[in-house]
Amino acid sequence: MGTLPTIRINLDSSEPAYRQIAGALRTLLVDGTFAVGYQLPPVRQLATDLGVHHNTVAQAYHILADEGWLTLRRRHGAVVIERCSPKPTPEVRSAFLRRLRELGAEAKAAGLAPDVVADTMRAVARHFVERRLARG
Amino acid sequence: MGTLPTIRINLDSSEPAYRQIAGALRTLLVDGTFAVGYQLPPVRQLATDLGVHHNTVAQAYHILADEGWLTLRRRHGAVVIERCSPKPTPEVRSAFLRRLRELGAEAKAAGLAPDVVADTMRAVARHFVERRLARG
Repeated sequence: MGTLPTIRINLDSSEPAYRQIAGALRTLLVDGTFAVGYQLPPVRQLATDLGVHHNTVAQAYHILADEGWLTLRRRHGAVVIERCSPKPTPEVRSAFLRRLRELGAEAKAAGLAPDVVADTMRAVARHFVERRLARG
Repeated sequence: MGTLPTIRINLDSSEPAYRQIAGALRTLLVDGTFAVGYQLPPVRQLATDLGVHHNTVAQAYHILADEGWLTLRRRHGAVVIERCSPKPTPEVRSAFLRRLRELGAEAKAAGLAPDVVADTMRAVARHFVERRLARG
């Protein structure tokens, strides 16, 4: 079983904890930090680490299993499996655009200056392209 | 009461409908489409338009009222009020950065190419800076 890179969730957020956990783990899956065969920590252990109910972690693992990232086996726990990237539907890009705008608006509503919103988006954009180049 | 620009939600999304509604309305509030004094449609009307339970819309309005965007009065419904931008806490930027990365990872997991993820982020970044310039 690998050591889990620290993931953080915010229990005060209006975003449900299981979605925060799934989002944080998905990011590590997408960027290859979790390779095929990697065994995620048992549900109860991660739940204790994060201070949430074990059902909350189980729900996050199920989301990722439904997306094809994990296999959940009673004795072996959650293991990362080979996953083929799906063909994106047209809705994927429009939903992504909409959610980006909303996330930016939310940050601006929380007091971030438009320049900071824009710079942060550009930095993350750069990160996505650089990862691709680094992998050829 | 103004005409509400069309907002769209996706009932198949794992993102709860009340959060989608709040997110869509917040975007219109942040970019000034809804000015001070604008009266949002009654809860039941918007609920019918979107095909959700009226409590779902009420929950979205309450979130926005808590954030200082709206006043909710029994006879007048939801009205946009003057709102001062809060001073952002250090957590706001780090949470924004984290959620941007997660949103990008989610789009990539759904099949979008890294270049498309990056280009979409840059386009939205430009939108935030241009709006600021347009308003001086």
